[in-house]
Amino acid sequence: MKKRIVVQKYGGSSVKDADRIKAVAQRICSYKNSNTDIAVVVSAMADTTDDLIDLAGKIAQSPTDREMDLLLASGEQISSALLAMAVREYGVESVALTGFQAGFVTDQVHGKARVQQIDGKRIKQAFKEGKVVIVAGFQGMTKEGEITTLGRGGSDLSAVALAKAINADVCEIYTDVTGIYTTDPRKVPEAQKLKEITFDEMLEMASLGAQVMQPRSIEVAKRFNIPLHVRSSYSKEEGTMIVKSTQKIEDIAVRGVTSNKNEAKITICAVPDKPGVSAQIFNAIAKAGVNVDVIVQNVSHTKKTDISFTVPKADVVKGLKASQDIARKLDAGDVLEDRNIARVSIVGSGMRSHHGIAAKMFDALAKASINIKMIATSEISISCIIDLDKADQAVSVLHKAFELEKR
Amino acid sequence: MKKRIVVQKYGGSSVKDADRIKAVAQRICSYKNSNTDIAVVVSAMADTTDDLIDLAGKIAQSPTDREMDLLLASGEQISSALLAMAVREYGVESVALTGFQAGFVTDQVHGKARVQQIDGKRIKQAFKEGKVVIVAGFQGMTKEGEITTLGRGGSDLSAVALAKAINADVCEIYTDVTGIYTTDPRKVPEAQKLKEITFDEMLEMASLGAQVMQPRSIEVAKRFNIPLHVRSSYSKEEGTMIVKSTQKIEDIAVRGVTSNKNEAKITICAVPDKPGVSAQIFNAIAKAGVNVDVIVQNVSHTKKTDISFTVPKADVVKGLKASQDIARKLDAGDVLEDRNIARVSIVGSGMRSHHGIAAKMFDALAKASINIKMIATSEISISCIIDLDKADQAVSVLHKAFELEKR
Repeated sequence: MKKRIVVQKYGGSSVKDADRIKAVAQRICSYKNSNTDIAVVVSAMADTTDDLIDLAGKIAQSPTDREMDLLLASGEQISSALLAMAVREYGVESVALTGFQAGFVTDQVHGKARVQQIDGKRIKQAFKEGKVVIVAGFQGMTKEGEITTLGRGGSDLSAVALAKAINADVCEIYTDVTGIYTTDPRKVPEAQKLKEITFDEMLEMASLGAQVMQPRSIEVAKRFNIPLHVRSSYSKEEGTMIVKSTQKIEDIAVRGVTSNKNEAKITICAVPDKPGVSAQIFNAIAKAGVNVDVIVQNVSHTKKTDISFTVPKADVVKGLKASQDIARKLDAGDVLEDRNIARVSIVGSGMRSHHGIAAKMFDALAKASINIKMIATSEISISCIIDLDKADQAVSVLHKAFELEKR
Repeated sequence: MKKRIVVQKYGGSSVKDADRIKAVAQRICSYKNSNTDIAVVVSAMADTTDDLIDLAGKIAQSPTDREMDLLLASGEQISSALLAMAVREYGVESVALTGFQAGFVTDQVHGKARVQQIDGKRIKQAFKEGKVVIVAGFQGMTKEGEITTLGRGGSDLSAVALAKAINADVCEIYTDVTGIYTTDPRKVPEAQKLKEITFDEMLEMASLGAQVMQPRSIEVAKRFNIPLHVRSSYSKEEGTMIVKSTQKIEDIAVRGVTSNKNEAKITICAVPDKPGVSAQIFNAIAKAGVNVDVIVQNVSHTKKTDISFTVPKADVVKGLKASQDIARKLDAGDVLEDRNIARVSIVGSGMRSHHGIAAKMFDALAKASINIKMIATSEISISCIIDLDKADQAVSVLHKAFELEKR
């Protein structure tokens, strides 16, 4: 009979101290049996990575990416070694592997390397010996022997990529919440835990502000159709399955509501309305290393048009500078900024086949006297840019309007 | 013209925080010039290793050596990355290398691996590029890709082995003292810093209690005749050169005085005096994993003899148990222990050609009413076991008797 293969990923808060590491080890041992092989991917103990970054900041103004990788990879090396010791302490044979020992080969882009290949030989051998394998997340090695890291949230990616490499039946993402909710339960007490959500919906949720999983890792899981199970490391409760398509998908138009308060709006006024200007503007912004999110440009009646877009708050200064430069070059008007904005979004795969969803959203916001400044839509989401101080109210209103508390 | 190659080793206290790391980086940069290549071996930041050991202790009663190595090796990975960043910050190109990246190949004995080979290719390439190389000390990798550590004080060994591999002109050992002294200057204010000392003398000093360098690393330096320079990372003052032979070697009978308070004495009474008993006893002790230091067995007049020996205090329980077992087997008498002992030793290569050194030592102790319980001698040292509470006084008395304060 084919054995069940499970990849489990534990985040930093799940292994923040000796007691939590022991609790995680007990959980792993309770799942391990002769019919189940387990590979665990572990993040650095909470705060370790930030502490190391702080230390580097005290020493160098612009540390090299290569040495930062060497520095930060030590965090997961520590947590994986400790977790392997703990698992063995509860009577299950185990082996800790650094990223490269686990076979993670990456490209050479330090700080945000991409996994090129995973050689699962060593892990499969350990499975044969009945061992639980503990893999240091977030890291790999180039073919030339340089230690690399996969960027923030990279342990999620390690877990998903590993699940693919060893043909896991499921990839469990352990975190400090019990699953994915219709919206943030800390803000809307009526929020309901979802039993299922599609990869696409989760991608919209993640990039729209729900910070449970790294978007890149969801993309990879989607591409290879690896079922993800997001659940809590503090309880045995079932969490949320992230899958290709859900059974009741036709019935549910809106799966959840999210908000994002970390963006700012930049507007370039009176841009000459001729072919190619948008391309020129957003090429200039991209060259400045700024990620643009929502873009709005309306039809023009005066040969001049306003172009607005949102950028992460951290990039506002860079974004403004680039905008002013290009505005001058294009003979456009003033450049305005607005940091007091938020984005609220509704997400749901069923939106495609349901009518009137957008109208219902705008109507609900209007009834609550919330003004909409910009609108952007995707296949499975609608986002409105509104005043920052209305964000929480808007989420609550939309959650109610789509009756998400009833599921 | 051949470039000068220098290996510098900095201990944990020299890189204990961001400020000290910066100070060390400045020092490295002040030595680096177009005619000097520098490879630096660095220990973990002070306390890191102990903190990691504590953490492991909270998690597992007997952690596996393999995972302990993975855990502890992270300490030097961190300090080497930080130091490389700091060096670059002061304008000198640098590269940090883990043990395996620096080419350290070891055997498979986790926790106390032996260096089998060092491939200096990568370091020589970095030298060609004008870079200072920062190597994580204390660690290496087996041919199978397992991370190993070299045991306590292993960074000294890393430095000496590296100096051999890249044909360094000198290996500088930076520590928190300014050199090797005639005795411990914290206890005897008259202690004098030595300009030179031989490998053999240093070996006796090190294994007899002067904790400046790891004995194994001195042995390796001696074998390959690598000059060591022990000096302070806090000042530019010249330290002590450890060399094959010193120029004035014939003139100096006694180089220094050391004491060791970390031993205990075990006596097996009334051992039947027949061939082979000593071998039986010390085989049994060795099998128990206990290192025996001084052994004294006197001629017997009664077909029974007492055999006394010293062991590290940490091994007393194991040593007693093994002694009682073998005593029973040999039909010997009681086994006694005495933890209230210390060893004082005088060390000097010149001893070989000077007469009356031992007599002078015993005489000085007698005049100070210090009773000698055991005596042991080597080619270049004489040790006396005395009461623990007389140790400091004895060191002072001997330092004066041999006029060491006058040099």
